Parts: sequence; structure tokens; C-alpha cells
Amino acid sequence: MVPADAFGSLVAALGDIVGSANVITDAEARRGYEIDWTSRFHGSTPAVVRPSNVNEVAAIVVLCRRERVSIVPQGGNTGLVGGGVPLAGEVVVSLQRMSAIDPVDVAARQVTAQAGATLAAVRAAANAAGLTYPVDLGARDTATIGGNIATNAGGINLIRYGGTREQLVGIEAVLGNGEIVRRMSGLVKDNTGYHLPSLLCGSEGTLGIVTAARLRLTTRYDHRVTALLAFASVEAAVAGVAVLRTAIDTLEAAEIVLDAGVRLVCACFDLRPPFARPHPVYVLVEAADATDPTAEMSAAVASLEGLEDVAVADDDGRRAQLWRYREEHTLAIGTLGQPHKLDVTIPQHELATFMGEIPTRVSRYAPTASTWLFGHVGDGNIHVNVTGVEPDDDGIDEVVLGHVAEVGGSISAEHGIGTAKKRWLHLNRSRAEIDAMRAIKRALDPDGILNPNVLLP
Amino acid sequence: MVPADAFGSLVAALGDIVGSANVITDAEARRGYEIDWTSRFHGSTPAVVRPSNVNEVAAIVVLCRRERVSIVPQGGNTGLVGGGVPLAGEVVVSLQRMSAIDPVDVAARQVTAQAGATLAAVRAAANAAGLTYPVDLGARDTATIGGNIATNAGGINLIRYGGTREQLVGIEAVLGNGEIVRRMSGLVKDNTGYHLPSLLCGSEGTLGIVTAARLRLTTRYDHRVTALLAFASVEAAVAGVAVLRTAIDTLEAAEIVLDAGVRLVCACFDLRPPFARPHPVYVLVEAADATDPTAEMSAAVASLEGLEDVAVADDDGRRAQLWRYREEHTLAIGTLGQPHKLDVTIPQHELATFMGEIPTRVSRYAPTASTWLFGHVGDGNIHVNVTGVEPDDDGIDEVVLGHVAEVGGSISAEHGIGTAKKRWLHLNRSRAEIDAMRAIKRALDPDGILNPNVLLP
Repeated sequence: MVPADAFGSLVAALGDIVGSANVITDAEARRGYEIDWTSRFHGSTPAVVRPSNVNEVAAIVVLCRRERVSIVPQGGNTGLVGGGVPLAGEVVVSLQRMSAIDPVDVAARQVTAQAGATLAAVRAAANAAGLTYPVDLGARDTATIGGNIATNAGGINLIRYGGTREQLVGIEAVLGNGEIVRRMSGLVKDNTGYHLPSLLCGSEGTLGIVTAARLRLTTRYDHRVTALLAFASVEAAVAGVAVLRTAIDTLEAAEIVLDAGVRLVCACFDLRPPFARPHPVYVLVEAADATDPTAEMSAAVASLEGLEDVAVADDDGRRAQLWRYREEHTLAIGTLGQPHKLDVTIPQHELATFMGEIPTRVSRYAPTASTWLFGHVGDGNIHVNVTGVEPDDDGIDEVVLGHVAEVGGSISAEHGIGTAKKRWLHLNRSRAEIDAMRAIKRALDPDGILNPNVLLP
Repeated sequence: MVPADAFGSLVAALGDIVGSANVITDAEARRGYEIDWTSRFHGSTPAVVRPSNVNEVAAIVVLCRRERVSIVPQGGNTGLVGGGVPLAGEVVVSLQRMSAIDPVDVAARQVTAQAGATLAAVRAAANAAGLTYPVDLGARDTATIGGNIATNAGGINLIRYGGTREQLVGIEAVLGNGEIVRRMSGLVKDNTGYHLPSLLCGSEGTLGIVTAARLRLTTRYDHRVTALLAFASVEAAVAGVAVLRTAIDTLEAAEIVLDAGVRLVCACFDLRPPFARPHPVYVLVEAADATDPTAEMSAAVASLEGLEDVAVADDDGRRAQLWRYREEHTLAIGTLGQPHKLDVTIPQHELATFMGEIPTRVSRYAPTASTWLFGHVGDGNIHVNVTGVEPDDDGIDEVVLGHVAEVGGSISAEHGIGTAKKRWLHLNRSRAEIDAMRAIKRALDPDGILNPNVLLP
């Protein structure tokens, strides 16, 4: 926390860098930057600073380093693990004003965007140029590219295109020492030392503040087919997805939901059930291609074992209806009270057992709890939502994440560690790995002023 | 250099770790480890150590760190920039004995291999399981996966699948501090801190010794079509490749060669010229698909402007004949004496101008020189070979790499920096970037014992 008497001079100095109009100190105006959207994580900041270019960001870091004031970089503030809000009086550096997107380089199939550009804006720019940016996720209209990079955002199309790190051709950032690093030439073959973009991607604002990125774009497909598959068991669903991944090169999404979740969604949004009779497990798959992929999808689906029913759609209206059974889960579960959100990855061969085991373990710990499971079955990423318990009941984390570690999974698939999970990092990372991370942190942020309360215990 | 009186005790201590039979001190037996295959880079080592597992590698690093003895990790020793041979009395740690490849995980489409496994062995294992490892390059039979990772090997299929870094799901390595880091669970979504595999990939043995890796495998396509395209100019060739990359999603390779190079290859290997009459520029493209891609290739090629002639082949025999015009370049140029090898990436929009300009600039500097240009046009990676000058004439580097930097290119596309180019690193990397690399080096290799003579000036 900044001592009160230092407030004035710090705010004035920040104003000298970005202009006083871009230093927010009013309590009311600050509030939205001080609390995350789950409203679980919040704190306070002496000032929210809104720079307009990389040199201003560097000047802010140099000033805060000299004044020994910590910084929390903030993008769209859509994170779920408390990684982007000031928890202990840090200065918030908001990248909102740095949202420019350069004209798309169609020949190179790349685009340069500033950190504050939203994911939706980058995707729209790519689309307008006849291409696409292959990372997509629900918070697309608010989440920023800078935040996506800081958390290595994954999303719904990862099984075909990889996550944010795989799209990152170049980066511009201000390191914790105040130095600007920039490699934005967009060269896909460039072996001239350590790959800073990959290191900064997923570092949760603890090594540097990302100010711009050079992103890979991919082919935009105009033909898209979506199928909702009803299975008798999770085992059959997991096996079916493995078959489809091999059979359909153009498979972009494979999402799993369970009967209870679909019933809840239907009740909350007054939707018709997807099929005449309910089924234990549903998988939503989508493929996209330059030509019509519907025939390929139908043929591949026909070969599946344990499939009880199927609905195939290639018109956008019907496709959107099928997606609602998956995408409305978060809102539907939210109507039961603030859920306890966990986001884990389970090895494919452990997935079915895990999904059967976790609700039992949670109920044993908290008999009043309900466990909701859904997510990206194609890459083993399951969202575990628990209702009927206090959101801050860390016993739930212990039960779920402990078991995740036992089966060789990841305690954070795509949300990151933030402040919510750092006390559990040891479940996934050895002492040697955590020591290596600490050493890298000291190397690039020698005074530890960047996001000091996240990631590393 | 190890003081002579320390030799005996060091060798004995190394023998205690790996067994004396695996510590090579005989001058004759050492020679192959002390010189690289270009024979341009060589030195001497007191001992070549051949560990059989990661714990032995860790013990070697701990011992050498305590004794203040430097280490050069070595794989297949096929590097071209002097990054893998002892230049100043370092101990050579050869990973040759660690060449195991686990059974392919078909469901996850991944394989775990030890660092000493050759690229060809990994590709064969993937093939036997009905999949493929998508990185491929000429040295496949000797180059090891560990070496591929240390240099982030690119190769001929990078335009479709990316380089080695994009295939690296997990890694096991011994850091310069002697600690073992391991994350081999093969989870594709795992956001729990800094991504050490991406950092170690391309670090040229300066941060850690890679001992094993978890690698992504891709679909094996049985249908393959290769076309040799004759163009009137490099401009037309570059434009044509851009068209084909958009038109053919399954394009795996796009290689450029020039008339002079093809004539030399034909003369050296007594081959018939590819076409009835010579053409200024040739591009070899290849596509692979689950179904027959020949029709797609032929249709796409028909739409090209400035195309003078074309040969399309989808039988393996004829395809191999077309590839020889490209792949025999290295051997054919070698018959003119040891060439000066440079390996650069040029932005697409600068490529044609660069290929016209470089021979002129080289001749201006060295009138006796001949400049040979060929390479991976699809990603802008051009191999610049200069004959008729001393291989160690650094003036050639200055002329070529200086111009590469002027046009925003990379001074090392896929060979790395090694010892050959470290004095030119400043052309591509800012002081801030080099400082950051040095800080990371100190963080993971505090005593600077790993490959101290490569990469960082």
C-alpha cells in the first residue's frame, strides 16, 4: 500500500506521464477496476492509469519502480482467478486506450493489434479481410488481446488451432525493469535467441506488461456444421470424440454437457429439450471447411458406438439453438447462487472416471453441494462448478484439485493461477519448477513490482 | 579450460556417475565430438560423457558446476553454426545413449521420446502408429529430437504445421543449476505458470540440457502431390506461392530454386533438366491430404500468373525426382569448395528485391564470389551460400546480414546463432532484448556453465 502522504506526488507524477485526465482517483470511478466480475476478488488502488502508447507504459513502470509502488496490469477485467484486480493497493495500469488494430497483412496472414483491442474487434478485423483469428471464447466482446496473451487464453477452437501462444508471432511489452522489448516483424522463422513472446504468454502480468502483439490469422471457412450427440455414458462420449478427431481433420470444437445441466438450462431459458427423451451425456461437435462438411460429419457420426441420438445442423439459426444447450450453462448455474468455479484438464484416459468420481467426493465433503460438470472434452478441459457451498470454501478446492493432481491433470486449464489458486500451485509444479519461475521473475522484474500477488506463492 | 592437474579427478568423478566406459578421453575417439560436420568449428574437450538417464545428467551438471567446468550438450552434431562442439575445453555431454521412444499414445496423438532419439526414429514410430511427426529436415537420420528442440528446428513442412516449438507439449530437462524440471503429462491446456518448454526450445543448450520431450503428432496422409513450377521471375514465384497458400489448405512445402542452382545440380548428378527449356526460377510445392489432392493442386496451379511451365507428380518415384532438383543443392554447391552458409528470413514483401540485390552486393565486396540462393520461399527462409571466398571471411556475413537487418529480416531462420553469428546478434536484437536474455541465462544457469560460447555475445 502506498503511504497516504505519497499519494499526491505519485498521482501528480503519473499525470505528468499520461495527462491528469487519464489518472482516475475518484472512488466511484475506480470501483469497476478494483473488483473482478465474479465479485469474489476485490481490493483498492490509489490510481487507475490509462496510457496511450508503449512509451507512457514504460515511463509508468520506471516511475513505480523508483517509488517502490506495485502495478496490476488490466485488460477487459474478465478474468476468473483474481489476476487482474488490485488486491493490496497496487496502481492499476489499464490498457483500454491502446486498442488500435493495424490493417490486416493478407499476404502474411497476420495482424498487429494493441493490447487493449478486444478479442471480438480482432476477430472482426480478420473477418473483414477474408481470414479469421482462430481463438474464440465467451467473453470475446470484453476480453482484450493483452489479457488473452497474459493468460494464454484457450477457448472453444483450441483442438484445431491451439491456444493464444500458438497464434503469437511477435510481441511488444514493457518488462518489470522498465525496458521495452519489441519483435513485431512477423517472421515465422526467427531463431535468434530466447522466445520472449512464448515466455510472456501465460505469465499473468508478472514479467511484463504486453502492449501489442503480432498475431497469426487462419483461413475463414464459410461452411460450418454442428452436431449434438447423445451418448449413454461419458465413456462412450470420450471414445466417440477420439474417433471423430481422427476422422474429421476440420473438427473445431467438442464440448460435453450432462443431462442435469441441460435440464437446468432448459428450465432457466424455457428451451425445448434437445431430443424426445433425455440422455445421460451430450457432446456438441462442430466442423468447418471450405466446402460443405455436413456429409463428412454425418458419415463419421454414423460410425460411432454407444450413440443414442443425434441432431445435425448446418444453418446458422439451428446451429445457434444447439450451442445454447452448452453456452447457457454458466448463466443457468449462476441462478443457483455464486458458484465455486474450478477449471481443470484431465488426461483423456482418466476423463470418464474423473467425471464420475468428482461429484461423489464433493458430496462426501459437503453433502449440501451440487457439482456441475461441462467443458471442452476434446482437450480434456472440464469446468467444475459447485453450488450449495460458500464460494470461498477452500475445502472444495482441496477435494477437487487434490484429485486432479492425483490423476495427472492440471489445476488450471485456461483460467490461470491468479490469486485464487496460487496456494495450490505446488500440486502441479515441483519445487524445482517453482524455483525456476521465481528466478525468471527476478530476472525480468527485479523489484517484484508487477502483479506481486498472483501466480507465485 | 580445465587445469591439467584437475583432469584426472574430474574424469574419475564423471566415471563414478556414468561408468568409466561412458567417459571418452581417448584423443582419437573424442575427435568426432570435437568438430562439427561443416568442419568449420572445432575445439577440444577433456572428456565426452554419455549418460543413460536424467539423474546421471543432473549429477554431471552438479559436479561440473561445483568444479567450475563448462558443458556443451551434444545431440547428433549436425548443427551448422558451431553451437554443439567444445570450443574452449568444455566437457561434452552426449545424449546419444538416451534414445528411447515410448509407445505412441494414439488417443492423445502424442509420443514421448528421449533427447537422443533421431528425428527419423521419432517419425518412424509415429508412422507405425498411423500418425506422423510433422517436423522434417534433411539431417533426419542423424539429427536428434534434443538438438531439434535446442535449435527449434523448422524444416520443410513448417508452413503447414509450424516448427519444433509448436509440437512441444512437454519437456524434461536439467537446468544449469542442476535441478531437474519435468512436465510430461501431455496436457494441451495447462496454464499453471511460465511455459518452460517454449523457453528451452531454441535456447541452444544455454539454459538447460533437454533429456526428453512429449511431442504432438498429426494425421498421416497417404495421398501426396508434388509440383515443380517454372516462373519468369522471383516476383511471379513469390506471388504465386501466396496464391497457392490461400487456395490449398493442405500445402506442406513451397521451396524455391534458381536456374543456376538447377543447372549445377543437373551437372553434378547427371540429371535431365526439369523442362524442355530452362526458366529463371522454379518453385517446388507439395500438398498432402486424406483424399487425392492432385485435382485441387492442378486447379490452383492453373490460376497462376507468370507461370511458364509445370510438372505435376503424385507417384513416389516421380515425386522423388522432382525433389532432387531442390535437395541436391547442398551437395552440388559443396563440390565447389566449402561454402559460406547463411540462413535468413526475409519478409514476404521484400523477398524478390532481396534475392535480386544480394548477389550484386556480395560481388561488389568479393568479385570472385558466387552466390547461391535457395530455400523455403513459403516462410521467407532463404539459404544464402557463397562460394569462391574463404569460409571464414566475416565480411560476407557483414554484407549479407547487414542487408537482412535493413529489410527487417532475421539473421538466423532455423540454424540458430551458435558461435558463428553471435557477434551479429545486435543486428536483430535490441540491447533491451539481449539484456533480458542475459538475465534469463543467469536465472537458470547461475554460474554460466552451459554452452558458454554460443548465442550471447
